Amino acid sequence: MKDITVSVSKTYQVKIGSGLLRSLGAEVTSLCKASTAAIISDSNVWPLYGKAAEESLTSAGLKVISYVFPAGEDSKNGRVYLEILNFLAQNKLTRSDCIVALGGGVVGDMTGFVAATYLRGIAYIQVPTTLLAAVDSSVGGKTAIDLDAGKNLAGAFYQPSLVLCDLDTLSTLPEDIFRDGCAEVIKYGILYDKELFALLAKDGLNFPREAVISRCVELKRDVVTDDEFDTGARMRLNLGHTVGHGVEAGSHYTVSHGKAVAIGTAIVTRAAEKYGICDRKTKEQILAILALFGLPTATALTADQLYLSALSDKKRSSGSVNLIIPETIGCCRIAPTPTHDVKSFIQAGL
Amino acid sequence: MKDITVSVSKTYQVKIGSGLLRSLGAEVTSLCKASTAAIISDSNVWPLYGKAAEESLTSAGLKVISYVFPAGEDSKNGRVYLEILNFLAQNKLTRSDCIVALGGGVVGDMTGFVAATYLRGIAYIQVPTTLLAAVDSSVGGKTAIDLDAGKNLAGAFYQPSLVLCDLDTLSTLPEDIFRDGCAEVIKYGILYDKELFALLAKDGLNFPREAVISRCVELKRDVVTDDEFDTGARMRLNLGHTVGHGVEAGSHYTVSHGKAVAIGTAIVTRAAEKYGICDRKTKEQILAILALFGLPTATALTADQLYLSALSDKKRSSGSVNLIIPETIGCCRIAPTPTHDVKSFIQAGL
Repeated sequence: MKDITVSVSKTYQVKIGSGLLRSLGAEVTSLCKASTAAIISDSNVWPLYGKAAEESLTSAGLKVISYVFPAGEDSKNGRVYLEILNFLAQNKLTRSDCIVALGGGVVGDMTGFVAATYLRGIAYIQVPTTLLAAVDSSVGGKTAIDLDAGKNLAGAFYQPSLVLCDLDTLSTLPEDIFRDGCAEVIKYGILYDKELFALLAKDGLNFPREAVISRCVELKRDVVTDDEFDTGARMRLNLGHTVGHGVEAGSHYTVSHGKAVAIGTAIVTRAAEKYGICDRKTKEQILAILALFGLPTATALTADQLYLSALSDKKRSSGSVNLIIPETIGCCRIAPTPTHDVKSFIQAGL
Repeated sequence: MKDITVSVSKTYQVKIGSGLLRSLGAEVTSLCKASTAAIISDSNVWPLYGKAAEESLTSAGLKVISYVFPAGEDSKNGRVYLEILNFLAQNKLTRSDCIVALGGGVVGDMTGFVAATYLRGIAYIQVPTTLLAAVDSSVGGKTAIDLDAGKNLAGAFYQPSLVLCDLDTLSTLPEDIFRDGCAEVIKYGILYDKELFALLAKDGLNFPREAVISRCVELKRDVVTDDEFDTGARMRLNLGHTVGHGVEAGSHYTVSHGKAVAIGTAIVTRAAEKYGICDRKTKEQILAILALFGLPTATALTADQLYLSALSDKKRSSGSVNLIIPETIGCCRIAPTPTHDVKSFIQAGL
């Protein structure tokens, strides 16, 4: 078991290991004086792990209430958010009670926002059950819901009191969903850590779970410590995401987030070589590792389509965007790029 | 003009004086790099001051968008909250833009919560147009909406970037609404400041606006500085509010907040004398000042009704509540009181 400390506006532990779900109840009672724990989960995860979570909490003497919403990004909306708040209020959850987010990124983002705002903030615990949530969204306190106009447009910076990552839950992930998380794992290697990158390039999908996830969390921890409120360094985590967002939106969200990020990373990398920012070897290493993990590196969308769906009207008119561009493995630059140059940069990477 | 600095998680000014609304645009441009300002207001205030606010912002070079909701506590709900968020997103308000809360407590609470959560937080300015908002809700960063189960159950601690209190706006307040604010003004005197109390007892409703409002804001500033997140000292501000909440709820909200607080203060004061916590003179001073301001000091509700509507099931079962009880003018105690003793305390004060 690995235990990583995050010290930002709140200090908390990220625990990573097998079988940790069994200790959920004991963790909650050692963290706070809750008499009731509210589990928020979705229709995919609850049938798999709801009972185990509930039993652990109950056996620690806690009353448990639970709210399960339909799985999928479509549920990350204001209506479900208000329903959960009303559910907690009807069940008279108090400021000293706590909330458990049991699931992937959608559950974690939604639950974090509920916890940030119910009674102006109560304690919550992230129990990520996808690789993506384990290495990315469960750590760092970015919570959100989607609005009609776009993803993650309402939310709060609100840190969890604990992140409990039970590696056993990842073993039930459909391989496709696991691959999505791998795109973010590879991102950490490209951004910050050539040894992590080398390990991933050697082991592929069989990478050692605890060591790699822990390393990703440490890297995320360092970034968040440096820039909790996303005003600078944290934007490096957008590697592959600007163009990736164009792929997601341009495909009307039929391409998953992880695969879109992989394609975005590949496009930015090929363009980086053409612009002389990285060398050919670096480019080939990045494209090879994405292929090794079975992730896509190309799209049928045109540069024009990607440009239009990646940048909102407002962004296009604002003059410049910050692209994150690989220089070598483990080192990327933040490149403020005039918006009128972004399309040709994308074109160079197709 | 008075200029009071609040230094908590954010440092900001509270400016109090006549004609300040005219300087709104200049204030915004000196505070942030906004290109658009979004005014949130209600159907009472917008017809009175919307145009002046808009003109000031426009003449400072800002684009202005505005959202006006029906006046009243009924609007402080999740549906209106989401509507405003979607309105801002559709109008592509960015993180560097700002929001202006133009109105009383409902507008301020709602707008603050919107600002706290839109794009995970953008700058907002409180322009309080009621006495209650000027001396209480606009300062200190408590933002909220109501849920079906009760008032202020969802929200955030989120400080404004500026509070601009134009005393001229208070002159258009219906006298009844002005009196409601007076209950909170008197509260500051009883809690913290016998000189303020003496001034109010001398001048009654004709108290000097700028001096008294500024003093209340200074007192609120000191409390909030001490306890921004409401974990201790800030609870003193609940003087008259626990029993007052019973009056509000017991009357099905036909008695206004200010009048309910006045009645709650009177009940707690009479009980305090019976319990030997304050002397007779203190009691008479408090009852006399409430009467001088035309505020009610009695209710037809029984102790049992008040007890049941003041304390939720959960609170009643939790063992004890903190009552705020006057000892002398300018000094109140926080009295942890077993819930089973609360009813007889109320009975003593009827």
